[in-house]
Amino acid sequence: MIITVQRVIDRLIEPVGPLERTVDLLKSGRLDAEVRKVVVVFMATYAVIQQAVESGVDLIITHEPTYYNHMDEVAWLANNQVFERKRRLIEESGISIFRLHDYIHEYKPDGILIGMLKKLEWEAYANPEELTLLTLPPDERHTVRTLAAHLKNKLDIDSLLIAGDPEMQVRNFGFLVGASGGRSHIQYFESRNIDLLIVGETNEWETNEYVRDAADMGLPKALIVTGHQNSEEAGMLTVVDMVREAFPQLQVDFIASPPAVMRI
Amino acid sequence: MIITVQRVIDRLIEPVGPLERTVDLLKSGRLDAEVRKVVVVFMATYAVIQQAVESGVDLIITHEPTYYNHMDEVAWLANNQVFERKRRLIEESGISIFRLHDYIHEYKPDGILIGMLKKLEWEAYANPEELTLLTLPPDERHTVRTLAAHLKNKLDIDSLLIAGDPEMQVRNFGFLVGASGGRSHIQYFESRNIDLLIVGETNEWETNEYVRDAADMGLPKALIVTGHQNSEEAGMLTVVDMVREAFPQLQVDFIASPPAVMRI
Repeated sequence: MIITVQRVIDRLIEPVGPLERTVDLLKSGRLDAEVRKVVVVFMATYAVIQQAVESGVDLIITHEPTYYNHMDEVAWLANNQVFERKRRLIEESGISIFRLHDYIHEYKPDGILIGMLKKLEWEAYANPEELTLLTLPPDERHTVRTLAAHLKNKLDIDSLLIAGDPEMQVRNFGFLVGASGGRSHIQYFESRNIDLLIVGETNEWETNEYVRDAADMGLPKALIVTGHQNSEEAGMLTVVDMVREAFPQLQVDFIASPPAVMRI
Repeated sequence: MIITVQRVIDRLIEPVGPLERTVDLLKSGRLDAEVRKVVVVFMATYAVIQQAVESGVDLIITHEPTYYNHMDEVAWLANNQVFERKRRLIEESGISIFRLHDYIHEYKPDGILIGMLKKLEWEAYANPEELTLLTLPPDERHTVRTLAAHLKNKLDIDSLLIAGDPEMQVRNFGFLVGASGGRSHIQYFESRNIDLLIVGETNEWETNEYVRDAADMGLPKALIVTGHQNSEEAGMLTVVDMVREAFPQLQVDFIASPPAVMRI
């Protein structure tokens, strides 16, 4: 029996069951197309798609959207030269692109989060009931600065943003990947009574200002912002393992992208 | 006749006329309170409010919200210790806080934008019909990198983010302060056919990825992200000038804040 795009998708959504409302759709290609080669990425960039097409990939599994907005709406992009060129590359190649965002975050545990915890070697710190909540063992002393150094080292990050005192001792911390929003960040801070929150991306007027105020009040609160891609990309390795295990005959590769922006 | 909070607000909204829907409200204090001392800020942080209260300020005019969300909704913050402590400081002091966001952006020209152009000494580059669109004179050769250096120098920024080739020659560029959103950024890029867009803040999966793709296609497109505060704070100097001119007897001071986050 040949492996089709549909069979791979069935495997990816199986841990959750079909969601009624989701951005996880087949963005291009055909459900009945045969799959021999798969690449897994955080973001289906133009460079990634070009590389995939040139190496004969049939299916790209991407965590984030293709067309610069969460819903992948395209009407507003009509005649935009970047959009049109990307769409042409995708359509002429016939490559299939499936977005895997909502499902993987719904896996038990969250597939992105567990992938990141593995990459960071933080699985043992995580509360088994709530993997976003981490507690350091009493004999491991860390400050905001040493945890930032660990993140930079394990995730190959040049620099990251912090609010609060970098020399503050950290006992417990939260790890919310991606951009879950200011309310999510601020409510997490308060309800878990954590010292430090590590997030992917913020709106500057929300989480950043909350932690600035908390620190200015003398409260032991700090924030690390890693960048969105840095906080989730390695989490997609979960998908590489899943697809390889389900379909050993497939070639499944992971492509990490350079950061979209650089700091100067 | 004494100067009241109401009279100062009347002056601030006079260039536009009352807006039906706006976030520009009196966040604390009383419209009939007398005003002798005013401070103008980008963000009414805890530190700013404390400093204002200690120095006997009657009215703070702030561009951004007080409580970590654009609408300054507070129900979700009930019992949050940072919120409660900030609110207590404000209420016990009786200080008046007026948000000036929508009105100042509606001034003709946009008060924030014109203040930033002055600070950057870029007024002469701006298209008189559309001040966000700047064209360099033929004898001034700039690259993305040299424009970034100019921004860092004039706005006292340690570092900023860029996408695209830093050595790319720039002929014309857009300057969209704050966080106007991915669609706004991307449509501006396309409709004005600019080489470079300078913005305050982005969602990483939107504008950043659009410019990454454009650059990977070989298109001459680049992006500079200054940070939200960096892109608007000096624009509030427009308000300092306005209030001083309208009410020469008032003491009107500007307080610049350090960045909420630092890069390590």
